[in-house]
Amino acid sequence: MKTDFSREVCVVGTGMIPFSKYPDKTLAEIGWPAVKEAIVEAGLPPKQIGAVFCGTALGGMLAGQRVMKTLGITGMPIINVENACSSSSSALALAWLSVASGQHDVVVVIGVEKLTKFGGGTLPLEREDWEVNQGMVMPALYAMRARRYMHEYGLTNEQLAQVSVKAHDHGATNPFAQIRKRVSLEEVMASRPVADPFTLWHCCPTGDGAAAVVLAAGHIARRTDTKPVRIVASDVTSGLFTDGFRDMTWPELTARGALEAYEMAGLGPEDIDVAEIHDAFTIAELMYYEAFGFCPRGAAYGLLSSGETSLGGKRPVNPSGGLLSRGHPVGATGVAQAVEVVRQLQGRAGAHQVEGARVGLTHATGGGIAGVDHGACSIHVFAR
Amino acid sequence: MKTDFSREVCVVGTGMIPFSKYPDKTLAEIGWPAVKEAIVEAGLPPKQIGAVFCGTALGGMLAGQRVMKTLGITGMPIINVENACSSSSSALALAWLSVASGQHDVVVVIGVEKLTKFGGGTLPLEREDWEVNQGMVMPALYAMRARRYMHEYGLTNEQLAQVSVKAHDHGATNPFAQIRKRVSLEEVMASRPVADPFTLWHCCPTGDGAAAVVLAAGHIARRTDTKPVRIVASDVTSGLFTDGFRDMTWPELTARGALEAYEMAGLGPEDIDVAEIHDAFTIAELMYYEAFGFCPRGAAYGLLSSGETSLGGKRPVNPSGGLLSRGHPVGATGVAQAVEVVRQLQGRAGAHQVEGARVGLTHATGGGIAGVDHGACSIHVFAR
Repeated sequence: MKTDFSREVCVVGTGMIPFSKYPDKTLAEIGWPAVKEAIVEAGLPPKQIGAVFCGTALGGMLAGQRVMKTLGITGMPIINVENACSSSSSALALAWLSVASGQHDVVVVIGVEKLTKFGGGTLPLEREDWEVNQGMVMPALYAMRARRYMHEYGLTNEQLAQVSVKAHDHGATNPFAQIRKRVSLEEVMASRPVADPFTLWHCCPTGDGAAAVVLAAGHIARRTDTKPVRIVASDVTSGLFTDGFRDMTWPELTARGALEAYEMAGLGPEDIDVAEIHDAFTIAELMYYEAFGFCPRGAAYGLLSSGETSLGGKRPVNPSGGLLSRGHPVGATGVAQAVEVVRQLQGRAGAHQVEGARVGLTHATGGGIAGVDHGACSIHVFAR
Repeated sequence: MKTDFSREVCVVGTGMIPFSKYPDKTLAEIGWPAVKEAIVEAGLPPKQIGAVFCGTALGGMLAGQRVMKTLGITGMPIINVENACSSSSSALALAWLSVASGQHDVVVVIGVEKLTKFGGGTLPLEREDWEVNQGMVMPALYAMRARRYMHEYGLTNEQLAQVSVKAHDHGATNPFAQIRKRVSLEEVMASRPVADPFTLWHCCPTGDGAAAVVLAAGHIARRTDTKPVRIVASDVTSGLFTDGFRDMTWPELTARGALEAYEMAGLGPEDIDVAEIHDAFTIAELMYYEAFGFCPRGAAYGLLSSGETSLGGKRPVNPSGGLLSRGHPVGATGVAQAVEVVRQLQGRAGAHQVEGARVGLTHATGGGIAGVDHGACSIHVFAR
């Protein structure tokens, strides 16, 4: 990716609603409060908004237009972006391009999703998705990766369950988390089985949510009353979700994206103070510790058990509670991660603040199943 | 829109499949032949492709990834774009930004749709779309605009039907058109009623299709064996589809976009030699003649009947047959229009060639109904 734009891109506004289930709200009703909060926080007049990028995976046509017209702010280009679980992080990447290249000075990014519209579960995209039709839904796929990881590295059920305990510890104090309660190791182990080795608490919940950020060029950001946070890397990749059956414990797509993002930021894993990564299932967080170079392959549980990735540790991962606790309304996740990391770097994350964080990373990745075995991954690095 | 990039953006490859109904093909099977044709035509090695933008409105998650993995070309950023009927024209606008800004040198744009997956018709997006639920579907909405236009300007049923006759005259010789047959005025008038004043032949058909273009920076385009066509304006707008009940015969969204596009191109309506515009229903073509400044308000039928917008006339509109004859697989339309105009400017449009065309325009616009009364519009101007 050629990315030698000299223009600084900053986040000057953040907004999000508590992730939850809102079956009685429309997509626009879910989305607009987050966007309004972000615009108000930025303190810039709406007429300065040059473009809007809206990420949604399942929100239906013209989601961004529906949200923005509810706010009465239209006229500028509004473009909807779909990349499965990395829909709104891909929207963020386009918004970054728009500001970094000088096309626009102020751009709004939205992530919005209403999963309660569906029943939940993995829907086959086409009749040819025979793997999904046969039961190879997301929990089953990740469960296979978990089983293989356990086989390769001797990880136990109890050790894997600790990822869930940590996630819910973090999310318990996050007012935006869908599941705001701690769960004990025993509760994780005893919850109902989903796909062996996963019990219920190994899996992220289904829900609705919205998040938004306002990006501005550096010269405008510095004139606001905000504490601008710079975006120092913006990366989107495509490819096989893992190395497939050759090595299903190595998330190739993310590992490649991580290298690209680090190169663009001129930083390495040792520089990351806080990270929001795509822990759709417990095993995912461990695999991503390794893909991001936070530890060597096979050493993820050691890193977890050392406390380094817990709040109070050297590099907390998913202080928000992550997908497991904050929730995962597919298309909203990427921007929600950005909101979390920006607020962390601004020192206003509240009870789950990571003290002194200066550099943060977000990671959302989608696909990897049957008809969409080639997925998308989007990684951003933020710095204050 | 700030758009003073100095970098030239050219189309160096085009591909498309005949629009038709392909119920037995998957979305990827519909899409890949168009992309392959465009890449082969460009003559650039696939490894040079820096990014892919895929427009689809109803194709489901990760459409671009599904198409590209079928070709075995992945690894680069692939981003899916949704903007209803202007999905792939919005993807084209993002691809233009990517090349114009210098982010990437070579970018692929795809438009792909499989409407036969659904039954056809306008689906309500949410239960709150009470207008759609009550029968205010697309043909009904356009029919109201037609009735108002007839009231305002004295247009007759027979005059309106002439738009359909022209469209099918043009499409009859286009091997990519879904409806490759001429229809007489009598046939249009006698076909079954859909929404008064529209009979069947006043309405675009439902179908499947795919189209693709390869964009390259000028310095690369000039090294290919192609006849590069420059993109001299790329515009996306949002807003009310028309001025609403204040003036439903004036497509405000398109009129505003047209001014923006003309300004960016440094051209005016008098410079346009050929145009592919969004004639989803007969009345649309007449309204857009006026919105693009091809004639004053109320004078559209006069322009049509003069023959100026027919093949052989001064400025043929929809030489491909337009949406009415070539077809309108929603998300595929924008890129299909670009393929048509580029081939026209290269002098290789075959039996429906517009002789000597040097500047062409494409226009795709979506939404404008109930929950999505705020729509999207994307306009591009091409020049050789």
